[in-house]
Amino acid sequence: MEINLTELAARVGASLRGDGDVLVSRVAQLNQAAEGTLSFLGDAKYRARLAETRASAVILSEADADQCPVPVLVSKNPYLTFAEAARILHPPAPVVGGVHPSAAVDPSARIDPTAWVGPLTVVEADAVIGAGVFVGPSCVIGQGVRIGEDSRLVARVTLCAGTQVGRRALLHPGAVIGREGFGFARDGERWVRIPQIGRAVLGDDVEIGANTCVDRGAIGDTVLGDGVKLDNHIQIGHNVEIGDNTAMAANTGISGSTRIGRNCTIAGAVGMAGHLEIADNVHFTGMAMVTKSFLEPGVYSSGIPAMPSGAWRRNVARFRQLDELARRLKQLETSLEIMNQAQGREES
Amino acid sequence: MEINLTELAARVGASLRGDGDVLVSRVAQLNQAAEGTLSFLGDAKYRARLAETRASAVILSEADADQCPVPVLVSKNPYLTFAEAARILHPPAPVVGGVHPSAAVDPSARIDPTAWVGPLTVVEADAVIGAGVFVGPSCVIGQGVRIGEDSRLVARVTLCAGTQVGRRALLHPGAVIGREGFGFARDGERWVRIPQIGRAVLGDDVEIGANTCVDRGAIGDTVLGDGVKLDNHIQIGHNVEIGDNTAMAANTGISGSTRIGRNCTIAGAVGMAGHLEIADNVHFTGMAMVTKSFLEPGVYSSGIPAMPSGAWRRNVARFRQLDELARRLKQLETSLEIMNQAQGREES
Amino acid sequence: MEINLTELAARVGASLRGDGDVLVSRVAQLNQAAEGTLSFLGDAKYRARLAETRASAVILSEADADQCPVPVLVSKNPYLTFAEAARILHPPAPVVGGVHPSAAVDPSARIDPTAWVGPLTVVEADAVIGAGVFVGPSCVIGQGVRIGEDSRLVARVTLCAGTQVGRRALLHPGAVIGREGFGFARDGERWVRIPQIGRAVLGDDVEIGANTCVDRGAIGDTVLGDGVKLDNHIQIGHNVEIGDNTAMAANTGISGSTRIGRNCTIAGAVGMAGHLEIADNVHFTGMAMVTKSFLEPGVYSSGIPAMPSGAWRRNVARFRQLDELARRLKQLETSLEIMNQAQGREES
Repeated sequence: MEINLTELAARVGASLRGDGDVLVSRVAQLNQAAEGTLSFLGDAKYRARLAETRASAVILSEADADQCPVPVLVSKNPYLTFAEAARILHPPAPVVGGVHPSAAVDPSARIDPTAWVGPLTVVEADAVIGAGVFVGPSCVIGQGVRIGEDSRLVARVTLCAGTQVGRRALLHPGAVIGREGFGFARDGERWVRIPQIGRAVLGDDVEIGANTCVDRGAIGDTVLGDGVKLDNHIQIGHNVEIGDNTAMAANTGISGSTRIGRNCTIAGAVGMAGHLEIADNVHFTGMAMVTKSFLEPGVYSSGIPAMPSGAWRRNVARFRQLDELARRLKQLETSLEIMNQAQGREES
Repeated sequence: MEINLTELAARVGASLRGDGDVLVSRVAQLNQAAEGTLSFLGDAKYRARLAETRASAVILSEADADQCPVPVLVSKNPYLTFAEAARILHPPAPVVGGVHPSAAVDPSARIDPTAWVGPLTVVEADAVIGAGVFVGPSCVIGQGVRIGEDSRLVARVTLCAGTQVGRRALLHPGAVIGREGFGFARDGERWVRIPQIGRAVLGDDVEIGANTCVDRGAIGDTVLGDGVKLDNHIQIGHNVEIGDNTAMAANTGISGSTRIGRNCTIAGAVGMAGHLEIADNVHFTGMAMVTKSFLEPGVYSSGIPAMPSGAWRRNVARFRQLDELARRLKQLETSLEIMNQAQGREES
Repeated sequence: MEINLTELAARVGASLRGDGDVLVSRVAQLNQAAEGTLSFLGDAKYRARLAETRASAVILSEADADQCPVPVLVSKNPYLTFAEAARILHPPAPVVGGVHPSAAVDPSARIDPTAWVGPLTVVEADAVIGAGVFVGPSCVIGQGVRIGEDSRLVARVTLCAGTQVGRRALLHPGAVIGREGFGFARDGERWVRIPQIGRAVLGDDVEIGANTCVDRGAIGDTVLGDGVKLDNHIQIGHNVEIGDNTAMAANTGISGSTRIGRNCTIAGAVGMAGHLEIADNVHFTGMAMVTKSFLEPGVYSSGIPAMPSGAWRRNVARFRQLDELARRLKQLETSLEIMNQAQGREES
């Protein structure tokens, strides 16, 4: 994909300064750019790299425009403009309708003629695959699954029976959507499985990372709102609800029936207990341990950052005594108070 | 599946109050129930929902029976009775024996005629698949694997060579059982892999979650007892042994050669070091960091719950000084003791 | 594989004491050994087991050689020698070249005639599979992927388009290499995906555990050096670089653009933030939370080990007050200092 700067600027809504006939065909980092590449300056601390860049054009903000030796596209949000330009230069391959002859497709499945079903993919009874959908190799599309228009299953995605996927979803390899969740009643020492009859329901523009799991609801559904983005290795328990545009980084786990609001960001390896309520616009930092509801927007954290092991061992030993240390501190305060009063009496 | 209350009560061992001819066909939550549904009251805090429920019948305990406007099934353990009723109303689809024509089955594999092998599944040499087993689509059943009667592999399960699965197991998509574990000897800077010649051996009624891994033993076997239940994304290292009816929630990892007793519950994202001994009836709460053996039954915890990030940063800074703070506290106590003694001498 | 001790000693470079005609055919633990097995004593605390072992031969160090009732192979590094002997006794099955008829191979892929492509595996356009490579069942080899000589993909491995794998790699089931990483720009509340045009590049002798993910670079590549060993369930973000012979245990996650040196060991469930720099020979203990760069070799730790829940709750409550406790301690020190000065003045 090759495009000249005049056309690119128009398509991403940036203002061009420099030769509009210059052609770019791919993106590159400022310090690794070559002729024909488009780069960007998102962070002022890399400004010094502008002088020596070999990019054919750079996206940057008004404040940096004068310092660039090559044509520039000026934007109020250079990173977003770069994302949009990169999508123009590196579009996904177009979807060509059809079913690979090695796929195993149940005759009752309804596959839009503009959708692609890849090699060695299984499509079970009554599944419905919408227009423009790309189902890559080795996927399993369970009974009664529905996939909305223009969604893309990269490869080896498993959608268990009844799962609903919205439009323009992007599902990565190893994702498992709609597994029967972890629900048991206890009968003495024995665990009795409770049938999980709800579904997993994904909105539009949802992304699910590699090897991420979203369990189906026990009764009622597990629901991911529009624009929810999940990274790799995430666990979403049964009946969790996640609001629109909330994003989660890798290795995070959300226990059953927890409800998370809109526009939250949840960093990597966070753990949330079940049946919690998390408001809109809540942000958790990495490895946060979430054991109660958070009803106010804000940034929340937990955990002990790494330190040299010797110091860590000494401090951890004290942590085990922390309640006792606090009691001794209180005792000292009381003793000092008494001594002060005694001294006061002596002096009066 | 539709059933009248008289028959349902008899099958689950509950006592019916109300019209035994009423039919139910599925389960629902109290506040989302409609005609034809069966609901339950497990927790007294939802008792107020009874008055307005539209369920056709409710399972509850003796204490709540009078407050229910619809027929009730009285049980000493409503949640367990509900689980059993739900299993009657929502049975798994019966297994029809056969092998899908797209499966790749080695001629030396022995598949019981009442077992099903799904589309695009691989069954390698000398595998043995028992009566009533369901092997879903896209599974890999390695060489010499044995699967006991009535087990169910939902889809895309990988059983590596030699893995043994008991009866009535339930294995979810993405599970990998019997991988060669992480064992190396060091040769200077280079790692030399140690062949892993043990097996993974799963008892009866074991459940393995989506994308969960159970590594084979290095020498000797990795062993999961009867009734062990593992949620998604769990890692079980080589030569781990887990006692009967122990359950683990998602994202937990158990390092090699650790032995866990019976009837333990291990919450989500717990990490255990290797070569530990965990007694029967031990319970770890979420994200617990287990670095030593626990030989007494009980509940154990660790971790710092999330708090506003500003407060967290201040407290973490103090944690780094904790040993020093404890020493200063001790010093203060000593000083005060000396002052008190001095004061005592003055006063005498 | 049966071998006599004279030949085995020569091949592993150990010195034999005892009957060189004795045959061994497999390895076993000292206390579970039987005739025909080779065992080893790596840790002096098991020395008492020597007297009663039924092994046909034992690998051990000079210091223990006299105490063994059966033939011994003396080595300076018994564990390494055992690893090498075990590899001789338990070699992987030889790779027989060919393509299983059920595989779906694009005609433009180049597969060396000595390589094996297993049942129900997909090989896409322009992939290149080197000599002696074993691609097990149900793998997906994406467009333009290259796999170096003698690598082994056990089963169900996914290599996304463009991924490069070196020689003698070992990739376990469920691994996903080269996924498009988690990169978005924000447009108001909406997330805009940034195309991920880099690759995942794995060196020689790399091992990737079951269900482990290595994302491709955003711009530029994600790079794993020679001899890198990753356990199961690991997440490697886009543009991470890992130096030669660094090993990581299960459930660890490394965020984007972090660079890790050579010969590091990273234990289980460690989490690293993005854009960090970790020096060579750095070691993190289990569940460490790495939020800043570590530029000096050493051992680093974090986290709170598990304790009885009651004590934990009390100590955690104090942790929330830790900054306040430290201020009160400082206040006490000041008060005491003032009292001491006052007392000093009185006494003078």
